[in-house]
Amino acid sequence: MWTQSRLLELLNIHHPIIQAGMAGGVTTPELVTAVSNAGGLGTLGAGYMEPEAIRKTIQDIKNLTRRSFGVNVFVPEFPYATEKEIGRVNQLLAPFRNELGIKDETKPQVDESLFENQIMIIKEQHVPICSFTFGIPDKDIIQDLKDEGIVLIGTATTVEEAILNEQYGMDAVVAQGSEAGGHRGTFSGSYSQSMIGTMSLIPQVADQISIPVIAAGGIMDGRGVRASMVLGAEGVQLGTAFVTCKESGAKPQHKEAILHTKETETVMTSSFSGKPARGIRNAFIERMEGYENDLLDYPLQNTLTKGIRKEAAVQNRSEFMSLWSGQSPRLSQSESAADIFQSIVSQAKRINS
Amino acid sequence: MWTQSRLLELLNIHHPIIQAGMAGGVTTPELVTAVSNAGGLGTLGAGYMEPEAIRKTIQDIKNLTRRSFGVNVFVPEFPYATEKEIGRVNQLLAPFRNELGIKDETKPQVDESLFENQIMIIKEQHVPICSFTFGIPDKDIIQDLKDEGIVLIGTATTVEEAILNEQYGMDAVVAQGSEAGGHRGTFSGSYSQSMIGTMSLIPQVADQISIPVIAAGGIMDGRGVRASMVLGAEGVQLGTAFVTCKESGAKPQHKEAILHTKETETVMTSSFSGKPARGIRNAFIERMEGYENDLLDYPLQNTLTKGIRKEAAVQNRSEFMSLWSGQSPRLSQSESAADIFQSIVSQAKRINS
Repeated sequence: MWTQSRLLELLNIHHPIIQAGMAGGVTTPELVTAVSNAGGLGTLGAGYMEPEAIRKTIQDIKNLTRRSFGVNVFVPEFPYATEKEIGRVNQLLAPFRNELGIKDETKPQVDESLFENQIMIIKEQHVPICSFTFGIPDKDIIQDLKDEGIVLIGTATTVEEAILNEQYGMDAVVAQGSEAGGHRGTFSGSYSQSMIGTMSLIPQVADQISIPVIAAGGIMDGRGVRASMVLGAEGVQLGTAFVTCKESGAKPQHKEAILHTKETETVMTSSFSGKPARGIRNAFIERMEGYENDLLDYPLQNTLTKGIRKEAAVQNRSEFMSLWSGQSPRLSQSESAADIFQSIVSQAKRINS
Repeated sequence: MWTQSRLLELLNIHHPIIQAGMAGGVTTPELVTAVSNAGGLGTLGAGYMEPEAIRKTIQDIKNLTRRSFGVNVFVPEFPYATEKEIGRVNQLLAPFRNELGIKDETKPQVDESLFENQIMIIKEQHVPICSFTFGIPDKDIIQDLKDEGIVLIGTATTVEEAILNEQYGMDAVVAQGSEAGGHRGTFSGSYSQSMIGTMSLIPQVADQISIPVIAAGGIMDGRGVRASMVLGAEGVQLGTAFVTCKESGAKPQHKEAILHTKETETVMTSSFSGKPARGIRNAFIERMEGYENDLLDYPLQNTLTKGIRKEAAVQNRSEFMSLWSGQSPRLSQSESAADIFQSIVSQAKRINS
């Protein structure tokens, strides 16, 4: 049903559907391999993971599939914050911590060698596909991974970022439209100017680069898949569509929130991590509004709110959790990943015929 | 090449492509009729027009085509502003007026019977299609127009607004995604929560209403047309794609700006009219940033900035003009409306086959 494409060949998959490498425990080995075994590309969201945990999870994945799969990592940034700035954010977060009965974080911890160690594991484990968010890695890392035969996918939110990804040697690029849930992949230019809707972004990117374009943002079903390919993409990447599935490691409150919300209820916020991301509006986001200028840069802010998000899940207080979601929550489903994948493919097939 | 659809029948057209009823002189009789004669639906943007001018223009249109065409009008709102509030905006606008050498507006003038008089002309002239922006008219007006056999199209930016349009008896609804240029059609709920990308909006709307959905926002070529129909729309409405064509009455500076800008250069602003609209960022928008709370409500703000926009065009100072554009300016073309229309249809046809 799909025209044989460069992307299918490149990724060694049957259907041009990639499950996004969402960080924070969503992408369990069961989810990743359900997608890969169904003929798509499952992706481990390893952005926040320690190298040892990545190694173990990759081995779990390999035990569950012989198919192609990917690992997503975050190109790091190392911002600085003064004691005073950290103190100010801790002051803003104190009411939440009080309500949850947890104590202050002393200092945001950032492991400066995390990324390099993650890359080491990816090479060691001969991961078939490696995708990047939040930037493009150094040329020597790119060359290193390519020398191992690892296929590289970058992320772009504008035409310019897509061109940069091509110039730096990425094999394909995800074009992330403004509908997308979770963090913006923007790494060049301002966040606000890089909120381009998928309908606009895909054809304009496809016209300007030669490597395969993978559409992301608002795509949940066979209609979105087909539409993306009509717009000039060779494949799609779906995040929110898989957050709610049985195998997803997302917190139950997160799944329920997506399954029961409307397209008007998501909002862009930097309050959780210091970087703009789309999630379902809740009390944490609302109470942090107006303090945008006080937030620490990513990933410092993320480190400081981690305890709150974790404890909120334990205490079943979704109003303090980060409930990432794209703009199409009305199309979400709670079935198994294989069932969701199959229904997407079947619908795309019906549209084709 | 198109499956015969309810929309084609309803609008009595051959291709499911509507030229948006852009106000402010863009939609000349030549543009409207070029689109209608090509088999689409040309639309006169009559939102700001006096009844007598509408009558004359409709007669010009009828002299140029025997095909179906539409007239778009704005459902009115009547905000109030104190002398002090008006004075404050005049103070903000003074530097622009000084630079242009024009004098202060004394008071914003709003003709409270404009809409009713526009509707009278539409009935009198037996206009085939009437479309509405900024709301849904009273039930008696809807009934009145329907009794005349006039087909009615509403505008929605959310699922809820689409459902309201259906409930009030609209025959079809334009679902306007966040990529769209010019004013947001939002009339229920907040503007910021109603910025839904076209990729997300169309399928979610199509799932919830029974009347035909017309996709708008970021659509410029055959790819966008086909993608929209795959997503569940029966047709599309294109604005920016026709602003730059030969027959368009847009100011030359406006056309040039769209033809030479990038997808990252548009921005949402209320500074020109008091209502959020997407246009190309320029000095007027930048210098008005931070004064959002001082702006008068639409249409009062629009009235106060009119002289500036008009004189800026005369003096060739595009930095003070409203350069409305959607998020796909890289796909804009300067050919005749018929050529642009034909290239859209041909491309859609190629994708189909």
